[in-house]
Amino acid sequence: MNSFGLRFRFTTFGESHGRAIGTVVDGVPAGLKIDEEFIQKELERRRPGQNKFTTARKESDRVEILSGVLEGVATGTPIAMVIFNRDQRSRDYSAIKELFRPGHADFTYQQKYGIRDYRGGGRSSARETAARVAAGAVAKLLLREFDIEVEAGVAEVAGIEGRELNFDYARSSEIMALDPQVEGEQKEAILKAKEAHDSVGGCVIVRARGVPPGLGEPIYYKLDAVIAEAMMGINAVKGVEIGAGREAAAMRGSDHNDQMGREGFLSNRAGGILGGISNGEEILVKVWFKPTPSIFQRQRTINLQGEEVSIELQGRHDPFVAARGAVVAEAMMALVLADMLLLGATSRLQSLKKVYNG
Amino acid sequence: MNSFGLRFRFTTFGESHGRAIGTVVDGVPAGLKIDEEFIQKELERRRPGQNKFTTARKESDRVEILSGVLEGVATGTPIAMVIFNRDQRSRDYSAIKELFRPGHADFTYQQKYGIRDYRGGGRSSARETAARVAAGAVAKLLLREFDIEVEAGVAEVAGIEGRELNFDYARSSEIMALDPQVEGEQKEAILKAKEAHDSVGGCVIVRARGVPPGLGEPIYYKLDAVIAEAMMGINAVKGVEIGAGREAAAMRGSDHNDQMGREGFLSNRAGGILGGISNGEEILVKVWFKPTPSIFQRQRTINLQGEEVSIELQGRHDPFVAARGAVVAEAMMALVLADMLLLGATSRLQSLKKVYNG
Amino acid sequence: MNSFGLRFRFTTFGESHGRAIGTVVDGVPAGLKIDEEFIQKELERRRPGQNKFTTARKESDRVEILSGVLEGVATGTPIAMVIFNRDQRSRDYSAIKELFRPGHADFTYQQKYGIRDYRGGGRSSARETAARVAAGAVAKLLLREFDIEVEAGVAEVAGIEGRELNFDYARSSEIMALDPQVEGEQKEAILKAKEAHDSVGGCVIVRARGVPPGLGEPIYYKLDAVIAEAMMGINAVKGVEIGAGREAAAMRGSDHNDQMGREGFLSNRAGGILGGISNGEEILVKVWFKPTPSIFQRQRTINLQGEEVSIELQGRHDPFVAARGAVVAEAMMALVLADMLLLGATSRLQSLKKVYNG
Amino acid sequence: MNSFGLRFRFTTFGESHGRAIGTVVDGVPAGLKIDEEFIQKELERRRPGQNKFTTARKESDRVEILSGVLEGVATGTPIAMVIFNRDQRSRDYSAIKELFRPGHADFTYQQKYGIRDYRGGGRSSARETAARVAAGAVAKLLLREFDIEVEAGVAEVAGIEGRELNFDYARSSEIMALDPQVEGEQKEAILKAKEAHDSVGGCVIVRARGVPPGLGEPIYYKLDAVIAEAMMGINAVKGVEIGAGREAAAMRGSDHNDQMGREGFLSNRAGGILGGISNGEEILVKVWFKPTPSIFQRQRTINLQGEEVSIELQGRHDPFVAARGAVVAEAMMALVLADMLLLGATSRLQSLKKVYNG
Repeated sequence: MNSFGLRFRFTTFGESHGRAIGTVVDGVPAGLKIDEEFIQKELERRRPGQNKFTTARKESDRVEILSGVLEGVATGTPIAMVIFNRDQRSRDYSAIKELFRPGHADFTYQQKYGIRDYRGGGRSSARETAARVAAGAVAKLLLREFDIEVEAGVAEVAGIEGRELNFDYARSSEIMALDPQVEGEQKEAILKAKEAHDSVGGCVIVRARGVPPGLGEPIYYKLDAVIAEAMMGINAVKGVEIGAGREAAAMRGSDHNDQMGREGFLSNRAGGILGGISNGEEILVKVWFKPTPSIFQRQRTINLQGEEVSIELQGRHDPFVAARGAVVAEAMMALVLADMLLLGATSRLQSLKKVYNG
Repeated sequence: MNSFGLRFRFTTFGESHGRAIGTVVDGVPAGLKIDEEFIQKELERRRPGQNKFTTARKESDRVEILSGVLEGVATGTPIAMVIFNRDQRSRDYSAIKELFRPGHADFTYQQKYGIRDYRGGGRSSARETAARVAAGAVAKLLLREFDIEVEAGVAEVAGIEGRELNFDYARSSEIMALDPQVEGEQKEAILKAKEAHDSVGGCVIVRARGVPPGLGEPIYYKLDAVIAEAMMGINAVKGVEIGAGREAAAMRGSDHNDQMGREGFLSNRAGGILGGISNGEEILVKVWFKPTPSIFQRQRTINLQGEEVSIELQGRHDPFVAARGAVVAEAMMALVLADMLLLGATSRLQSLKKVYNG
Repeated sequence: MNSFGLRFRFTTFGESHGRAIGTVVDGVPAGLKIDEEFIQKELERRRPGQNKFTTARKESDRVEILSGVLEGVATGTPIAMVIFNRDQRSRDYSAIKELFRPGHADFTYQQKYGIRDYRGGGRSSARETAARVAAGAVAKLLLREFDIEVEAGVAEVAGIEGRELNFDYARSSEIMALDPQVEGEQKEAILKAKEAHDSVGGCVIVRARGVPPGLGEPIYYKLDAVIAEAMMGINAVKGVEIGAGREAAAMRGSDHNDQMGREGFLSNRAGGILGGISNGEEILVKVWFKPTPSIFQRQRTINLQGEEVSIELQGRHDPFVAARGAVVAEAMMALVLADMLLLGATSRLQSLKKVYNG
Repeated sequence: MNSFGLRFRFTTFGESHGRAIGTVVDGVPAGLKIDEEFIQKELERRRPGQNKFTTARKESDRVEILSGVLEGVATGTPIAMVIFNRDQRSRDYSAIKELFRPGHADFTYQQKYGIRDYRGGGRSSARETAARVAAGAVAKLLLREFDIEVEAGVAEVAGIEGRELNFDYARSSEIMALDPQVEGEQKEAILKAKEAHDSVGGCVIVRARGVPPGLGEPIYYKLDAVIAEAMMGINAVKGVEIGAGREAAAMRGSDHNDQMGREGFLSNRAGGILGGISNGEEILVKVWFKPTPSIFQRQRTINLQGEEVSIELQGRHDPFVAARGAVVAEAMMALVLADMLLLGATSRLQSLKKVYNG
């Protein structure tokens, strides 16, 4: 269950403090140019330790392509990429080895498997998302060939909501902020929480443009359903909305329905998806992140023996994960769309004839 | 792409006004007692035409089990169930055949397939959800054997939010209301919209109790991710939240983390899921439904030729779909949990030994 | 596990003496004309009770299409087909209910599920293959659009081997014989076994012509591997060979390699598949059927309590199943090729561009 | 399509002369001890260059485990293993880059993908099977816990058939010969072909002992069907038989049926599988390998431009691949059984209760 996608399918492996993490991307159409530098750059967008709003922990995310590419071009065979964990010197895990950090997956992994890689969260660490970003970069290269663009940014931090959706601005913002007007206030909220040894949550908006109408596989691989799965599966995500989302529930049908004119839809409350299929409009998704569970205050928990203990984490952690989460959300959206693009190729007999009869 | 689940897997078929709809449920463990009457009752909970708050359209949902059951017991082979569409006399579809109803999947199906079953929405109709409820009923029978209970109800209608979560009350409420205090107000909002030939949306809450810790398959078949997929794939759903959900984003980590004591978790803001795996607490999910797209006001749209036209639907439709949607959400939750229960059986060598070595 | 195929995927359900058997075919490209009469005719080719070489048991195989077709055209939604078991009056199964028929799946189903539908073999009965033939007929309709033709016939009966591969002749032969020269001898062998209350086995050859080069998905969904799975999964099959097959093992490389000239391959010992991918030549597959396990002689077995008993079956059974098996093998080959056709549509970026960019 | 298995599922990647090959094994039950040395030893059994009967080409198959194992124990997360291709100095591929080697997948890869990794066969090279052997070694470690043993050996070389099935002897034989009586003759046949710059084929027999009755998932993931897929998917395999296999077709039912007594089956012509489900007897499979396509004689072929050319390969290749193929067949059988073991754990409600209710 470490794979995602049906036709454009990637598998990830690796633990936070193990030898390496990586991904195998299957289904990449042969002939696609694989820009290794682009993949590396995408990884660097996700990498922590770049400014004071995220963790000071350094991750060395140098990706190596092991297969599937010949002279810069995808051959149709699986593209394996690996990122070695350079910084895996033996540390002292005694503080967390025997107990369950609140808000973390320590307890549930122990319950499920009876064993748990306690080193930095093991597989449940957000470090695994680097592999998603690498796979997502390949997906983006494919989408580009069809003029499909995926972007994301932070709309809300600690309840402070922006109004503008400036995705260009977000790319250069240290916290991926979409609205320069509130960015300052949002940064301050992060720093304040950091000083209090605490953390904050936020909301990421993902946008996809240029998606052709017709993508999404009803009834059980709908575009919106798979986006919801992709987003909710990102570490720390607790809510996903499409288009007007939760707000739609308070509208009347006459306000919510997107009517149509000759030029297309007259509004986009649907967020680009109708009946689980793209309608050609912008796809807009809201992704809600909880505050980072790693905080540096004393908390109550239990140990492996079920005894009550208190824990006070040490170290370096993001006081705000949604900025890096935005890069992961972008990657997951690209991966979903790449998969849907491949799946959609056979929905009509006519399309199939184009492929085989030229 | 008309199947859902990996091990407890169901496939549905059928169009709103075709010959029949149905489902094939695969992976049901042999030996499970199949209570046909219970399945029928579940279908009746979803059936429209039962009161003035839903559509007056009658659907005859008489389920027939075609296979997989011998003398009331599942044999381990697929359980096929079919519901014939008794009421499929030829009607006059000329009003909708040539144009796209706003808020419906008419346009996107046409774009995807180049052909569309215009009769009552065809496959994109909510009628298909009857098949999910039938499959979900089998899942519930399985969950019962493990004392897992799934319930749902309506928390919010047209922006009117209840505070109480009385799932017992909801079962007997005509609108599946969770809070008797606001039910009257909520009903009034529905009727007002109905009189205005309009519709309203709402929020459903699904709760699962008795779920053992350890269910959910990281990293790409996480329990929360698959619940999100299952819920977002229900007709008219635009948002899904787990536990504190969207509200979590405005909290600090110190407020949001569920600390632990000897008796278990001291709070349940996580909604019963940590790292994509159940933690033994109640699973709580919010599902947001848009207002029914079928309204009886004049709307702008285009026809198959791309010409601007206006449409004014006639007939009988739900002014509020979330009440029936709650039954579907319950079914989907049961189906997800049944699948996870089967998947989880092999997560430990120890479990496997219990199975094979007695 | 009652589904086959990844993109052109069918699911079957039903027991020999249950209410109905049927299939749900998913992934049929929209726009394909569905010739219901053709499907019915394919079923009749498989139907027993048509001459003295097969069982005298009548099966009423009237197929009903329940969904997925509008005005004779596939809409892209699942095509469900059902065949009701008209002749399921309650019989006396006491002779077989409590014991395991040698050569049948009675023992293994009991071991696996702890319960077994003893009525006529239940799900393990060859009756289930009618559902495959119905699904296969839809696959054939798709293949026709690409001038791909699948045929099968009986090459060997009871060790009597034909030399000629006359697929046209086989269509009209009562035993699907490929070689009119040995057909008489083969028929005699069947009748002799029948008189001796015994049965015989045989070999079926399946041929596919017009298969474009490039079908098959390395490394683990190779065309030959999936054909092998499809054929070995047919009731009573114990061996599968591709091209020169077993004989290849006694050749030298210099004899076996198919060399190439301007016009293509100079020979076809590979049977149309190289490296798991079609090479444009005829695909040739040998399928070996064991003798029907249902014989009318006294045999030793045990009962549910593990006690030794003897059994002497009564009733009507095929003394030779390979003739009907040939029709099933044809269907399975068509289903594999249809799936590969869909899968292959996205192997190249260039193909994908043809689909989306016109 | 580079994954195999449903629950015990492995994915492979890598090309013959690329950076590395490897595998990701998913679904390994937590708690299984992972003996890295055993995995390495299995790889060495497959490695070429060990004696004069195989190629003199050296492959360095040093496996590195990248994830999924903590302190020698599987944690339930994916086990990634990589084998770097140390010996990938740039060579001169000009002799094969522009043309298609007879009997190889060069032509079909070019047809399918429009591009082909010409370096040593790329992905279609038997080098990929090292990854299967690594994954298979993990499967064997799991099977051991249930006392299931998988062995293989060479029964026939160049038409010279052994009679004895001495699997212990095979382990130490340079050509994996099962019958010491004919081994000398078989070796001679290989050397003769080698001297003639030619190659020979052969037959491998795989045996599994200790398989509990009840493994195999009807109707479309039958044990025999999946074994057939697994074996036919091995490079150079052209035929697969179960139990009496092809010989069964010439028997009468009364000779072929395995009757039962108090102690179990009185014979094992079925090869341990009935109705696609294991019956507790030994599983016996015959796998037929064609002669190695790489021969050092002049052959006719065409180049990328479709022009007729002749080719005379240089270098080092196996005159006989089935010996190494036997190790791969063993691995694939272990992988199939491991998958079936996991799948079978949920076939009965009773089993599921053992897992969850202790």
